[in-house]
Amino acid sequence: MIFVRFTLGDEPAYGIVDSHQVTPITPDPYGEYEPMGDPVPLGEVRLLAPVQPTKIVAVGVNYKAHAQEMGHELPSEPLLFLKPPSSVIGSLDAIRYPKMASRVDHEAELAVVIKKIAKNVPEENALDYVLGYTCFNDVTARDLQKKDSQWSRAKGFDTFAPVGPWIVTDLDASALPIECYVNGELKQKGNTSDMIFKIPYLISYISRIMTLEPGDVITTGTPPGIGPMKIGDMADIRIEGIGILRNTVEEGL
Amino acid sequence: MIFVRFTLGDEPAYGIVDSHQVTPITPDPYGEYEPMGDPVPLGEVRLLAPVQPTKIVAVGVNYKAHAQEMGHELPSEPLLFLKPPSSVIGSLDAIRYPKMASRVDHEAELAVVIKKIAKNVPEENALDYVLGYTCFNDVTARDLQKKDSQWSRAKGFDTFAPVGPWIVTDLDASALPIECYVNGELKQKGNTSDMIFKIPYLISYISRIMTLEPGDVITTGTPPGIGPMKIGDMADIRIEGIGILRNTVEEGL
Repeated sequence: MIFVRFTLGDEPAYGIVDSHQVTPITPDPYGEYEPMGDPVPLGEVRLLAPVQPTKIVAVGVNYKAHAQEMGHELPSEPLLFLKPPSSVIGSLDAIRYPKMASRVDHEAELAVVIKKIAKNVPEENALDYVLGYTCFNDVTARDLQKKDSQWSRAKGFDTFAPVGPWIVTDLDASALPIECYVNGELKQKGNTSDMIFKIPYLISYISRIMTLEPGDVITTGTPPGIGPMKIGDMADIRIEGIGILRNTVEEGL
Repeated sequence: MIFVRFTLGDEPAYGIVDSHQVTPITPDPYGEYEPMGDPVPLGEVRLLAPVQPTKIVAVGVNYKAHAQEMGHELPSEPLLFLKPPSSVIGSLDAIRYPKMASRVDHEAELAVVIKKIAKNVPEENALDYVLGYTCFNDVTARDLQKKDSQWSRAKGFDTFAPVGPWIVTDLDASALPIECYVNGELKQKGNTSDMIFKIPYLISYISRIMTLEPGDVITTGTPPGIGPMKIGDMADIRIEGIGILRNTVEEGL
């Protein structure tokens, strides 16, 4: 099943996509929900970020080949960092190039959307806490990441968390091809099977540190091929079985 | 004026404290509000964390003497990191000692509570975006902070963001004595006038990176004297003109 968040110009709503039609639902996909009103053609709605997370927990250096390109040692435990909810945008929204940055990179990632409160979850049951999966671009001001000991600035700017276009449920996410294209040219290519720490382990590990809430996002690290984007560029994150998250880069506000 | 969030055992509400009485208000202190029901004695309510932030932006190494005790160089720009909303607790709530940590420290801090949406705010107007101030304990698993390149785990555990007891408005926060006591013994002592980066500068700087929302918290760094707490300890953060944030340390859940 595919969940979207969208607007027809007024209030945002969640919906279910089927045969290019969006059926609005109420209140949200995280519990019992009901259809609300008539289906509308997918082409007529504006998609919003499909999640409104209380937190985004990101996993650094989780693909071996990316660790090598960055000159990092392979981690013995997941390397966690946070991106603020204020950085979230949806597909087709603009990534804003910060005035204080001089290199802004794409990082294609698979994101896990949490379905229900998760604390001290065992690895064996971890996937029960997943609503579904979506594409994520862990946009990073690489110059500031290198300058700062903590990555919160470099990865925390407004618009630096494109997520979408929607949430796909009932997907086996353990071996999905993942790619990033800039202006149609392939830049990153990997497979989620190459993650150092797998999704059930990540959910279990993180839930022993911080309670995960419905709609929270775990973004699972990027495969090799990261590189810069400039103003005017279009970045597509493609994950097989999910779709394409597309954002253009525009001047900072 | 003093704003609290509290409960009488049912729904949480905001209120105003005057002469040891709490007058409930609706909906919240971030816009127009009205009294709602009769005042109740302060002693009869359970105080909750006075804020429900979408993000907590913390400033590391913002007191010269603390930089020296940690062996850090003085920063040329504010060092930012994030604590997740799931780490927030109120005064008298328990700090839970994580099973995966072996040293858990107190860090007494002055916290700024944001009143309205702040983006690209000039330093001159920055204080217009402040609702008020409160006490904050930036609880830190020091062993994990030293082990991890990013501090999100060490500072992000559930219960690692005690905040309260309330929000004090109309306070000049530029030169307030700040102290931490563990089991009644003075451990940290400083004055907010010793901050390297002052509050208006911090608000302006952060707002150029990430949009601040009503209820968001900026916690402004800790004076020297940080040190460990153990299970059973009671940590008090005292700031003149605000009050005492008190938490005991209990076994992890």
